[in-house]
Amino acid sequence: MANLQDIGLSAAINILSAIGFLLAFSMLRLQPLNDRVYFPKWYLKGIRSSPTHNRAFASKFVNLDFRTYIKFWTWMHAALRMPEPELIDHAGLDSAMYVRIYLLGLKIFIPITALAFGVLIPINWTGKTLGNIKDINHITFDKVDKLSISNVPSGSNRFWAHILMAYVFTGWTYYVLYNEYKIIANKRLHFLASEGRRPDHFTVLVRNVPPDPDESVSEHVEHFFCVNHRDQYLTHQIVYNANLLASIVEKKKKLLNWLTYYQNKFERNPSTRPTIKTGVWGLCGTPVDAIDRYESELKCLSEEEDVEREKVLSDPNAVIPAAFVSFRTRWGAAICAQTQQTSNPTIWLTEWAPEPRDIYWSNLAIPYVSLSIRRLLMAVALFFLIFFFMIPITFVQSLANIDGIVKVFPFIRPLMEMSIIKSFIQGFLPGIALKIFLIILPSILMTMSKIEGLTSLSNLERRSAGKYYFFILVNVFLGSVITGSALDQLQAFLNQSPSKIPKTLGVAIPRRANFFITYTMVDGWSGVAAEIVRLSPLVMFHIQNAFFVKTDRDREKAMDAGSLDFASSEPRIQLYFLLGLVYAAVTPILLPFIIVFFAFSYIVYRHQIINVYDQKYESGARFWPDVHRHIIICMLISQVLLFGLLSAKEASHSTPFLIALPVLTIWFHRFCKGRFESAFTKFPIQDAMVKDTLELATEPRLNLKAYLQDAYVHPVFKGEEIAKEEEEEAYMDELVENSPLVPTKRSSVKDSSQHGGSSQGTTPDRSHDMHQA
Amino acid sequence: MANLQDIGLSAAINILSAIGFLLAFSMLRLQPLNDRVYFPKWYLKGIRSSPTHNRAFASKFVNLDFRTYIKFWTWMHAALRMPEPELIDHAGLDSAMYVRIYLLGLKIFIPITALAFGVLIPINWTGKTLGNIKDINHITFDKVDKLSISNVPSGSNRFWAHILMAYVFTGWTYYVLYNEYKIIANKRLHFLASEGRRPDHFTVLVRNVPPDPDESVSEHVEHFFCVNHRDQYLTHQIVYNANLLASIVEKKKKLLNWLTYYQNKFERNPSTRPTIKTGVWGLCGTPVDAIDRYESELKCLSEEEDVEREKVLSDPNAVIPAAFVSFRTRWGAAICAQTQQTSNPTIWLTEWAPEPRDIYWSNLAIPYVSLSIRRLLMAVALFFLIFFFMIPITFVQSLANIDGIVKVFPFIRPLMEMSIIKSFIQGFLPGIALKIFLIILPSILMTMSKIEGLTSLSNLERRSAGKYYFFILVNVFLGSVITGSALDQLQAFLNQSPSKIPKTLGVAIPRRANFFITYTMVDGWSGVAAEIVRLSPLVMFHIQNAFFVKTDRDREKAMDAGSLDFASSEPRIQLYFLLGLVYAAVTPILLPFIIVFFAFSYIVYRHQIINVYDQKYESGARFWPDVHRHIIICMLISQVLLFGLLSAKEASHSTPFLIALPVLTIWFHRFCKGRFESAFTKFPIQDAMVKDTLELATEPRLNLKAYLQDAYVHPVFKGEEIAKEEEEEAYMDELVENSPLVPTKRSSVKDSSQHGGSSQGTTPDRSHDMHQA
Repeated sequence: MANLQDIGLSAAINILSAIGFLLAFSMLRLQPLNDRVYFPKWYLKGIRSSPTHNRAFASKFVNLDFRTYIKFWTWMHAALRMPEPELIDHAGLDSAMYVRIYLLGLKIFIPITALAFGVLIPINWTGKTLGNIKDINHITFDKVDKLSISNVPSGSNRFWAHILMAYVFTGWTYYVLYNEYKIIANKRLHFLASEGRRPDHFTVLVRNVPPDPDESVSEHVEHFFCVNHRDQYLTHQIVYNANLLASIVEKKKKLLNWLTYYQNKFERNPSTRPTIKTGVWGLCGTPVDAIDRYESELKCLSEEEDVEREKVLSDPNAVIPAAFVSFRTRWGAAICAQTQQTSNPTIWLTEWAPEPRDIYWSNLAIPYVSLSIRRLLMAVALFFLIFFFMIPITFVQSLANIDGIVKVFPFIRPLMEMSIIKSFIQGFLPGIALKIFLIILPSILMTMSKIEGLTSLSNLERRSAGKYYFFILVNVFLGSVITGSALDQLQAFLNQSPSKIPKTLGVAIPRRANFFITYTMVDGWSGVAAEIVRLSPLVMFHIQNAFFVKTDRDREKAMDAGSLDFASSEPRIQLYFLLGLVYAAVTPILLPFIIVFFAFSYIVYRHQIINVYDQKYESGARFWPDVHRHIIICMLISQVLLFGLLSAKEASHSTPFLIALPVLTIWFHRFCKGRFESAFTKFPIQDAMVKDTLELATEPRLNLKAYLQDAYVHPVFKGEEIAKEEEEEAYMDELVENSPLVPTKRSSVKDSSQHGGSSQGTTPDRSHDMHQA
Repeated sequence: MANLQDIGLSAAINILSAIGFLLAFSMLRLQPLNDRVYFPKWYLKGIRSSPTHNRAFASKFVNLDFRTYIKFWTWMHAALRMPEPELIDHAGLDSAMYVRIYLLGLKIFIPITALAFGVLIPINWTGKTLGNIKDINHITFDKVDKLSISNVPSGSNRFWAHILMAYVFTGWTYYVLYNEYKIIANKRLHFLASEGRRPDHFTVLVRNVPPDPDESVSEHVEHFFCVNHRDQYLTHQIVYNANLLASIVEKKKKLLNWLTYYQNKFERNPSTRPTIKTGVWGLCGTPVDAIDRYESELKCLSEEEDVEREKVLSDPNAVIPAAFVSFRTRWGAAICAQTQQTSNPTIWLTEWAPEPRDIYWSNLAIPYVSLSIRRLLMAVALFFLIFFFMIPITFVQSLANIDGIVKVFPFIRPLMEMSIIKSFIQGFLPGIALKIFLIILPSILMTMSKIEGLTSLSNLERRSAGKYYFFILVNVFLGSVITGSALDQLQAFLNQSPSKIPKTLGVAIPRRANFFITYTMVDGWSGVAAEIVRLSPLVMFHIQNAFFVKTDRDREKAMDAGSLDFASSEPRIQLYFLLGLVYAAVTPILLPFIIVFFAFSYIVYRHQIINVYDQKYESGARFWPDVHRHIIICMLISQVLLFGLLSAKEASHSTPFLIALPVLTIWFHRFCKGRFESAFTKFPIQDAMVKDTLELATEPRLNLKAYLQDAYVHPVFKGEEIAKEEEEEAYMDELVENSPLVPTKRSSVKDSSQHGGSSQGTTPDRSHDMHQA
């Protein structure tokens, strides 16, 4: 058991490493060379242009203004300064509401911590059990444990205080959760009401169009909606199965990248034309001219693409039985999306169309029965993944020993016989399989969600987050409380009485407090600090910049703005909610660490969404019901564990009073669900009517059909036009621009428009620094 | 453990009692005097009139045609002869689909029985375990047990057969359930599509109309729907809080009954006017003239009623915030019912209006938060009711001993000291509290459902059925398998490991087969036979006929047609599904008993719905998803128990193959739910459009507003008009009719119209018998 010194040491290390990361960030972000890594959002918005222009040569790459270094904490202030309405405007509702999860953590835990320190810690401290036990068991209990519930003697009346506090904490959490749900529902409604015209307001995604022997899918859709939504139907857009075409386009893009690379290489060193080898991975085979080869390959692929495009557009079998149906009014679309069309609920399924960039095109054609079977399979797979994931990893570990490796690659035997390398590999290999698994786990879960057949990216992310949440619950939380694999736990639980399980867990809870404090510091503090440095995008950007970038446009492409990865980051936040709720009544000393995590994360992620992340889609905080539900599950777990702990402490006269808590929590969840959830899933008739009426008054002559015509076209068909435009523009750019360091016409236009952009009220943080300088 | 002789004896007794009931029924139903008890439905339909008219005096009361007695089984034939479409037409879809539950039982269990007898019984019979055990334990196992799974030795490979059969049985059950769901969904859709215009097609129930300071509820509703369903809104009907008025009307009806009784008494014996006493229950006090007293009381009440009626109609506070909103088309109503109106999901709640006679008026005004709290309280109450219902009963039993009674009523002490009476009461009292509880249990559950705030009778019945189902599961099934109260079980289960619970239960299952065979015969066979005799309505009818009836109209009122009591009878059927599914793979000898129950019930209830029951409302088989779900739960229980049994039998290499069964069952349930449930909960747009178009073509000048004007008026306001009409008619009747045994003008009109009625194709069973005579 760790003692205070250990925790202090760990805290010191982690605080130092966090400060290290922050300092690195403060230095790196001031370098003009890294500007696109740390402020990509402003570039993507067109408000900021390369600081490398219009400067003295040295200051193009290194910031020589030392005064800016002194004020290295200004970014924190800047991150917090932007008011929320502006933030929603700037980064979208999704991002703005996402950082509110951290704020929610602060709102819940700061008062709870104050109360727990004021009431529970004195009660625990004066409990004096551990002092007595020490003499018997020869275990040295530390001050941390004296502050926890372990210090209260069994059967003591002091537990009444813990039970009372559990109710107070729960009540406070309800209050905060309820208010937050209400606020976010209102913000969502306000956001939806105030945003401009969007194609998805008028459009409904229709799936499982039944086959008709006499009509094509398009005719069938048109006739059906003309009959059943006579006054409202406007137009529709059929969906092509363009998955093959999309893969060709993808491949072409990759080849184009390499072509650019070799062209750049040739430009820099015009004396020798670059060559590549034709064999596996370009490692062996005869060398050929790289540029020629890629050009010819590209030509081939372009032809293939044209053929495929032609085929998709002309082949009636390439039309999948789904369509985007648009209506004259939002009212008509709201009605069609919420009602059932026919008596057979597996055909003519209607739902709100996701916004065009949110659609996951590959899944639009899955029929009902197949969907149902896919869900079953994925549920079973998830169960096995959570409880049996250690089995294949152990198997891989058993294979990946040195003898095995030497057998496959005999030529590395001499290397292996060096004792340092040998011991390094022996220590390293077993861990690496698990580490790799944990890194790719979110991708595995996302693939599973994709197999389930969801049709929008936002849905996919939410679904994956749910899976990851359960994985973390079982394997990180429970796995740490009762050390052992999930499989062992499952076995142990099945053979234990249901009333004993919370007891077993409850008893283990206070003992693991130190572990979770350390975990919070390593994963929470240092992890978040590492996030802001953006090490991997930083490296990648400079590599791309060095080899692939020719024009500003290329540089823009090389920027990896990234985005909030809801599917993997939300479940990780939930772990801290769980820890906070579980330990609030048990070991309150853990709470300040959680609060630091939430506060620090709030600042960091607010900075990131302002300056860095570029969301792929905007769902209007559609994820909040999931966040709420996950916190409710955390509350339930904490209540059951407290119940188990107290019953193990033989507080038999007071413990039964805890039974009401989980019942109340479930009821609270159902209440909130009924009260708010529909704001996230349905679009009310009244709001649709209001917007329609307003639009009719302001734009009576709007040609809606033209507006909607191409809104829901598969990106590969859209891509064609955009790509052509881009190519032309790129050609123009090339004509104007000779050196990548001289401003082009286009970016100087952007420069002048920057002030217009800033006058909107969005102040990019760097320009602020520069003005000070 | 019962042996074959015991079961044979029990079977003989029950078969004899069942035959006795049937014979009694065959005799009683042929007596013209009982005609209204056994064929009320035909009277209510106006197709049949009193057989006591136009006959020789003796044959008015007793059927003297002995040939009809010989063919006493003809009713069975008649019950089965009516084809289903005619049955739906005659008795409604609810009733026709209700008897299909019995048919479903036959469809599931006849093939399963054949298979089980062909495969499992030979395997069990040759198992030879029990023969060996007998010598050791000195327990005589009977042939019944030799046919059960108990006879297979532990760890035998023969269990593979049981597992295989479990899969076959499950597969077959899926197949039958799926088909049945499909058939019933189609019948429902066909029924809805083919029925004529009904007010509820056009009407939506709007609840939680928000208060408005400037407008009345009526104006507010009108404005809201005029704006948001501009083209569709037609009219609306506000709802008055007429609960007090309804209770006055009810009281008035009761007084009127007594008045009639004393008037009859006076007419028969005109020499003395009847008197009553004014004290408690008419037992003490001064005697007054009964007719005068009731007449004056009635006059008082009528005045009170008028005042209250006036008050309700004029007081704006008597208007509750709910309304029935009607639309121009079914399409408009379908849309409004299925969509959300405003962004606040707790106001302007819309749902399909139940048909007018299905509405439970008292619950229309409950606000959202109150509803939510009521549900919580009722869920907690149900839990306590199921697991702790024995506590108050034990308490009552402890009070209701002889000493306690004597203390309260000292004057019965001498009576109590007679040893026969004493021992009778001592043996009788403890049981009676439980018996009374079980009799009033459905009413308790119905009251709980009413408190939950459901707005239609059909919903209330379904909800109560769900509660009763869980009560039966826990207290009848599990309580019989493991003898002991539910509370003991709960305690035992909490202290057992989850993997052991199915084992404990599984081991007990084969041992209780004999008990359940006896139960099936007593509760199933004799119970159903007793149902057809209608003892209580028979007695009540003759009592009322003797004292209260003056005119044919009164006689019609005295008929208690009754109705299918879904809330209490459906859960009882489910018990047999559960028994059949659980014992199919364990003790197949139980199956024939279940089959006899289903077959016999099918005939009896088909007869009852044709000739007796008069449904209070028509929900269009809305209950089927509940029936389906309950059977699925039965399947899950049977699968878990089989798993437990086999794992206790140490068939460790084969048992794990059973794990897939519950997973598959849950998936099957979800699949069916997705595939069919919406047919029972939503009204598809297409169907609404088809009916609208048809109606527009056939009745282009329909005045819908006039049609809907009074459809949704509280019955007490409607009752007023009807009551006035009735009073006038009754007065006319009295003028014409001097003796109740002479045909009146009106009933002779009915007589002549009877032939017109029969020519519709509905042949009342008695007239058929009479023609034969």
